Amino acid sequence: MKFTTVTAAAMVAALAAPAWAQDTKVIGVSIPAATHGWAGGMNFHAQEAVDRLEEVYPGLDFVLATASDAAKQVDDIEDMLATRNISALVVLPFESEPLTGPVQAVAESGAWVTVVDRGLAVEGIEDLYVAGDNSGFGTVSGEFMVSAMPEGGDIVVFRGIPTTIDNERVAGFEAAIEGSGINVLAMEHGNWNRDDSFTVMEDFLSKYDKIDAVWASDDDMAIGVLAAIEAAGRDDIQFVLGGAGMKEMIARTRDGDAMIPANVTYPPAMIATAIEMTAVGLTSTAPVSGTFVIGSVLVTQENAAEFYYADSPF
Amino acid sequence: MKFTTVTAAAMVAALAAPAWAQDTKVIGVSIPAATHGWAGGMNFHAQEAVDRLEEVYPGLDFVLATASDAAKQVDDIEDMLATRNISALVVLPFESEPLTGPVQAVAESGAWVTVVDRGLAVEGIEDLYVAGDNSGFGTVSGEFMVSAMPEGGDIVVFRGIPTTIDNERVAGFEAAIEGSGINVLAMEHGNWNRDDSFTVMEDFLSKYDKIDAVWASDDDMAIGVLAAIEAAGRDDIQFVLGGAGMKEMIARTRDGDAMIPANVTYPPAMIATAIEMTAVGLTSTAPVSGTFVIGSVLVTQENAAEFYYADSPF
Repeated sequence: MKFTTVTAAAMVAALAAPAWAQDTKVIGVSIPAATHGWAGGMNFHAQEAVDRLEEVYPGLDFVLATASDAAKQVDDIEDMLATRNISALVVLPFESEPLTGPVQAVAESGAWVTVVDRGLAVEGIEDLYVAGDNSGFGTVSGEFMVSAMPEGGDIVVFRGIPTTIDNERVAGFEAAIEGSGINVLAMEHGNWNRDDSFTVMEDFLSKYDKIDAVWASDDDMAIGVLAAIEAAGRDDIQFVLGGAGMKEMIARTRDGDAMIPANVTYPPAMIATAIEMTAVGLTSTAPVSGTFVIGSVLVTQENAAEFYYADSPF
Repeated sequence: MKFTTVTAAAMVAALAAPAWAQDTKVIGVSIPAATHGWAGGMNFHAQEAVDRLEEVYPGLDFVLATASDAAKQVDDIEDMLATRNISALVVLPFESEPLTGPVQAVAESGAWVTVVDRGLAVEGIEDLYVAGDNSGFGTVSGEFMVSAMPEGGDIVVFRGIPTTIDNERVAGFEAAIEGSGINVLAMEHGNWNRDDSFTVMEDFLSKYDKIDAVWASDDDMAIGVLAAIEAAGRDDIQFVLGGAGMKEMIARTRDGDAMIPANVTYPPAMIATAIEMTAVGLTSTAPVSGTFVIGSVLVTQENAAEFYYADSPF
């Protein structure tokens, strides 16, 4: 057989290209830069989805822009609209207010708009909204605590920055542990911050001689909590439940660390879901307008490997 | 160049097959048979999604089973679990009660479960729930009436079979027209049925000398309403708003029929969305567990062509 690689590649293209591949469509993806852990994971999963979909759909092209502030993100989106002829925009807004006008302009151009995680200041602009489930995050966390403490026990609870998100999580948690014999000794804001949570946990440890478990409700806060427990040399705390699926914490659960028996997802990979669904909308006749609330899933030693992304920074 | 078609095809497979294609995964799809209009459309879109995805993903195989009653659907699902080694099941349950046990068995086998439109009798079995938006269906319908009747006017309203679905739709509609100057002369159940709606409309026409517009809220009911208007020879009614996107009605909107200026989707193609999202879950790392509420979209002459499926029976 005699043919060159170029010829073979051309033949592959001719045989494999489905009809829709003839019109290339461009999807713009605009996200905050990887300034902290969760955002780092989000950047990783956005790039991974773009790489995967460019391979699966030769008829789709992607423009991925990351912004370290809202003004840069506004520029990115205006540029995509003006010069890249985008058919769709997937945006995780840095802030709601400054992004609302530019994203509305994209929608008015006739392009599809998918908004992820943080809503815009005006309702009804986006075709598709992909969001996490804060109430469910609290429910799943509470249900795990109940199953892990069948005889009940005394716990302390860490809250995030005072926000609707935090309120929804805590309300879900409280409803799930109601009547279970789990007693909340105290609840304080650790502000999704390691240092704040270290200080709060020091205070809890000095106040309470016996704490059975901690709902840290976030992996950054869990790391602060664990450091305080270690510094105090306390061995009464049986486990700490964080959340959001930070890589190091997922690894400890996977490896059977009794102090970190579980995690609850609030996945930065939701950006990948949003990009995938937008691609489905552009390549099929399946309707993808609406609201997708991504469930928070319990991660235990059994399934932790599925939630460990070796190449992700988060 | 000398090579046979077989050789070329083998080469294409070798070059094009991504890593995941090496493990073929089977997705079972279990749906009610095409016994009426909406179900006919649903069957069409299920087959279309399966055909499309088998082409896009060589590593996915599909088993599509249609059932004309709940007992047959139970058999189909038990068979998929016992003999087809399914990695995932997409099911639109005929009825909630009899399907709950069999679908639970699939979930307990470790397979992914996607439930569409109608929930099961036990919560928390499914990984992904894809549903229509009944409240939004009413809201979009009401908003259209308000925009089409800026001076207000007198309307009659048709309701479906008395159900939660119907209540949610009507509540959304009533909230949307509140304070708009639109006056609801009367509201009766046409039971999503042409003949019932013909009879109800005859009664409305004899009771009211002037009716400005009709919210028929469903295309089958709209057809009964239109027949009654024609039989009575009345020319006071300016338009009839149906819903669900029946092919014949979408065509009339597309073609500029002033009596059918719009439609509101409750898409049978939601089964395709469910199949597509399940495929995303099996081929990528994007999380697809959660609840996707597919939005009801306003169809007007401008976008009607997008919602007309030439080969679908519905």
